[in-house]
Amino acid sequence: YGKNTIKFLRLHKEGKKHFIKEVEVCAHLRLTSPQEYLEGNNCLVIPTDTIKNIVLVLAKKNGIPSLEQFAIDICNHFMTTFCQVAYVKTYVQEVPWQRLHENGAPHIHSFICVPDGIRFCEAEQCRNGPLIVFAGIKDLKLMKTTQSGFEGFYKNEHTTLPERHDRILCGELFCKWSYGECRDFDFDCIWKKIRECILEAFSGPPDCGEYSPSYQKTVNCIQMLVLSRVSQVQVIEVVLNNTFYNVVDMKNLGLTNDKEVLVPVEAPYGSCACTLGRK
Amino acid sequence: YGKNTIKFLRLHKEGKKHFIKEVEVCAHLRLTSPQEYLEGNNCLVIPTDTIKNIVLVLAKKNGIPSLEQFAIDICNHFMTTFCQVAYVKTYVQEVPWQRLHENGAPHIHSFICVPDGIRFCEAEQCRNGPLIVFAGIKDLKLMKTTQSGFEGFYKNEHTTLPERHDRILCGELFCKWSYGECRDFDFDCIWKKIRECILEAFSGPPDCGEYSPSYQKTVNCIQMLVLSRVSQVQVIEVVLNNTFYNVVDMKNLGLTNDKEVLVPVEAPYGSCACTLGRK
Amino acid sequence: YGKNTIKFLRLHKEGKKHFIKEVEVCAHLRLTSPQEYLEGNNCLVIPTDTIKNIVLVLAKKNGIPSLEQFAIDICNHFMTTFCQVAYVKTYVQEVPWQRLHENGAPHIHSFICVPDGIRFCEAEQCRNGPLIVFAGIKDLKLMKTTQSGFEGFYKNEHTTLPERHDRILCGELFCKWSYGECRDFDFDCIWKKIRECILEAFSGPPDCGEYSPSYQKTVNCIQMLVLSRVSQVQVIEVVLNNTFYNVVDMKNLGLTNDKEVLVPVEAPYGSCACTLGRK
Amino acid sequence: YGKNTIKFLRLHKEGKKHFIKEVEVCAHLRLTSPQEYLEGNNCLVIPTDTIKNIVLVLAKKNGIPSLEQFAIDICNHFMTTFCQVAYVKTYVQEVPWQRLHENGAPHIHSFICVPDGIRFCEAEQCRNGPLIVFAGIKDLKLMKTTQSGFEGFYKNEHTTLPERHDRILCGELFCKWSYGECRDFDFDCIWKKIRECILEAFSGPPDCGEYSPSYQKTVNCIQMLVLSRVSQVQVIEVVLNNTFYNVVDMKNLGLTNDKEVLVPVEAPYGSCACTLGRK
Repeated sequence: YGKNTIKFLRLHKEGKKHFIKEVEVCAHLRLTSPQEYLEGNNCLVIPTDTIKNIVLVLAKKNGIPSLEQFAIDICNHFMTTFCQVAYVKTYVQEVPWQRLHENGAPHIHSFICVPDGIRFCEAEQCRNGPLIVFAGIKDLKLMKTTQSGFEGFYKNEHTTLPERHDRILCGELFCKWSYGECRDFDFDCIWKKIRECILEAFSGPPDCGEYSPSYQKTVNCIQMLVLSRVSQVQVIEVVLNNTFYNVVDMKNLGLTNDKEVLVPVEAPYGSCACTLGRK
Repeated sequence: YGKNTIKFLRLHKEGKKHFIKEVEVCAHLRLTSPQEYLEGNNCLVIPTDTIKNIVLVLAKKNGIPSLEQFAIDICNHFMTTFCQVAYVKTYVQEVPWQRLHENGAPHIHSFICVPDGIRFCEAEQCRNGPLIVFAGIKDLKLMKTTQSGFEGFYKNEHTTLPERHDRILCGELFCKWSYGECRDFDFDCIWKKIRECILEAFSGPPDCGEYSPSYQKTVNCIQMLVLSRVSQVQVIEVVLNNTFYNVVDMKNLGLTNDKEVLVPVEAPYGSCACTLGRK
Repeated sequence: YGKNTIKFLRLHKEGKKHFIKEVEVCAHLRLTSPQEYLEGNNCLVIPTDTIKNIVLVLAKKNGIPSLEQFAIDICNHFMTTFCQVAYVKTYVQEVPWQRLHENGAPHIHSFICVPDGIRFCEAEQCRNGPLIVFAGIKDLKLMKTTQSGFEGFYKNEHTTLPERHDRILCGELFCKWSYGECRDFDFDCIWKKIRECILEAFSGPPDCGEYSPSYQKTVNCIQMLVLSRVSQVQVIEVVLNNTFYNVVDMKNLGLTNDKEVLVPVEAPYGSCACTLGRK
Repeated sequence: YGKNTIKFLRLHKEGKKHFIKEVEVCAHLRLTSPQEYLEGNNCLVIPTDTIKNIVLVLAKKNGIPSLEQFAIDICNHFMTTFCQVAYVKTYVQEVPWQRLHENGAPHIHSFICVPDGIRFCEAEQCRNGPLIVFAGIKDLKLMKTTQSGFEGFYKNEHTTLPERHDRILCGELFCKWSYGECRDFDFDCIWKKIRECILEAFSGPPDCGEYSPSYQKTVNCIQMLVLSRVSQVQVIEVVLNNTFYNVVDMKNLGLTNDKEVLVPVEAPYGSCACTLGRK
């Protein structure tokens, strides 16, 4: 197979107001015959340069109504135009530009980059198979400073970790879900709703939070809340890359450190992941 | 000289509500004698490990009332405690954690990382000299999709760039200013005000923007606005790392591209910088 | 499942001579029951900290005779010690330290980091299944300045790429192969042999090279040569991340550029990949 | 001032044999008048695009005989061509491509990237001032597994570091030296000689090494050896970014770890630097 990455900016205007989407598109193709590999026969090969042109032309003609619709459009184009394509997957990721505001007023043409979680999507299709749409968020860094512990775990002669009922829970979240074949959705609205579910399940109620007995359980809570609130989601995968913090031992320095000063622990570095679907 | 970098999290509670500062501190020392280099005599050397301990102990005892005050405290500690220190500079940078909100309600212990410009500061002192405080913002990515051009520049036989009166202006901003010796300021409040000045000078009025004839002029506008609005700033340095965007030529593809699809240009990559003070 | 990354250095001495392996180990476990996710019941969970201890203890006790043997040892330990483990995968990657030489003489305790391709391996096992060993090389950057072209590819209205029979072929290679279940091999020796096969298949004979009609065909040549020369390899995967170079058009500058000055093209960025096994 | 970065590959052939230099050039200009900043008057501004063209044309016309000569050529071009230029600095850095060898035979057109220290240089000139040439090496990672300690340092109530007479000394070296105004040198030959001095001073004799009482003393040894062996060097700056390794305490795991298993310590992270010239 082959993959190609293209970065570009799509700008459109409504009156004097400007709207932008800057995206990175990765198209992934597999051909029906491997003859280009085995024989060096290029006659079916679609050059990277052509793929780039197609993506840019589609963006020019249709715009990017939503990331997901754009990914679907690219998939459809390759499947209908090139009979030598056996499989196509399109990944689209957005640069997180947000409109600037001055004293509450939205600016007509100025933007700031705010990377608090990156939105992405995928559309995937095998020839004669259904087109499946995925969406997700990545690089979302979250922290709870309390209401988290880790107790009752398996112990043996290699165990040195003490049990803790009040630790810091910090991590970088990756979350990807499948919409299945149904695709006539308001993708922007659903994405925002799922982002809110993630934040809510991670944090618990604003006035008191909710106790997390492990990273694993927090992963599961996120999945359960999304599946219960957003009916369009078929399957949801969550990966949480953990950053551990240790309370600094200040006894040698003559001080008692009551979880006031902590250092991030670079290693061991862990992550936990789970994929959950509907019955 | 020697430098040391320490990362840690300072957590404090007011009732049930949690407050955090996660910082990276870099302490930079020069000793009065270079004997550790020339003779391998370590008797005046302050180990990295000791510097780390001092920074953590200061954070534990005083907290981090503001980045600037913390940098000043560290400087003062080294100057008053170690007579072998000839020069000390402290750099403090903040991890941009923001409190999470659910339906407008602030969460008591949950945070999200929002890196839309990183706050930093420096305190610097030579023995018998004044303590100078700097502050700044870096990694602030901004874009204007119109109201920017570049015309009337110097031309010779190596010039191939066409003049443009409607281009994209996009860049990553670094801005650092000096407060001089006066240090009894509300550093948090001033920092926020300067950030607003930067955004305003970059963008112009929200309903129409303001024409920028060059990256250089935009740099100058930012400096002038900050100096005029914020009397505590003595000197201000701005560096703008430019990202250029080219309108994709679609003639060969039979299309007219009216500044709708643009690609970022990786090279040449430029930046412009200027330092401006008061008379 | 859960993953953990641990970095450490294993040092051993033979007389006055020092030998080192600095490695990054990633252990990936899946338990027989998902109760830690669903119920927050941690009683079967093996903490990241325990996994770190096990890896370090195994390194202390057995050393790292080869990356592959170390990965196998870790896998075996988890499978035999923990009946709650359903699946284990161990990834081990080496920091490319090389012994320093002075005027041809090897230094007994000094090393230099030479990252010209990173060696890694994997061992993988499901409970009641075979232990499979993989090895590979990554981050290997290679360039041919001639004997490469791309012609006869598929063309349509979106094609703008000209045919080229003398271009630069440059890329970053990832290569991973399976040894199957048989594991009583001289892994170090085989790895070096495969690295030489890769370089030879990429380059062709030193006095004239060999024409490559495409990145894809070069990928296939590498696979074919490894499979033909190294009988222990069962399956081989090669991914080539392409860096394209364009000859700079200097007509506007009054010069003819006969493939003398070229610029790397950042986008589109492509890669091609293929997995090939024995019949 | 303004800066520009340009990456390109210069290829030339002698018979069938190919030679390459891939470089990154950064040109740094300051004009005699700041009117482009203050007034938005661009009439003296040399666009990034023109600077790129000049660099590429010089590479095409003159080739890159050595990095240093190329940097000098660019400086000279800007000073003699543009009377509005008050200051120019050119930084040139090389991608570390090495010719591939097969069974000892050099390949005529194939190369491998071997980043074991990156070569760079600078040429700098103020109008009416001398042209000064610098050269250097960076990203050179070195390790000594013994013959290093740190004892007799300054101690007070914040000291927790134990004295050590047998530790690991590991770091990333940056080294930059000045050739002054004299420039009719064999830059390639001198650079290689200095690299050898650095390795020798870092390591000591191959059969026994030489004890280093501190990072600082090792920095000084490197400087002293270069100044004593290479008469063309006027001033030499060395920065050593330290990576500390801790012997893992395995007492709780029932084992004695005799400096066999060590972990790199991410924080505190230190560096030491010194600049030394001739009397």
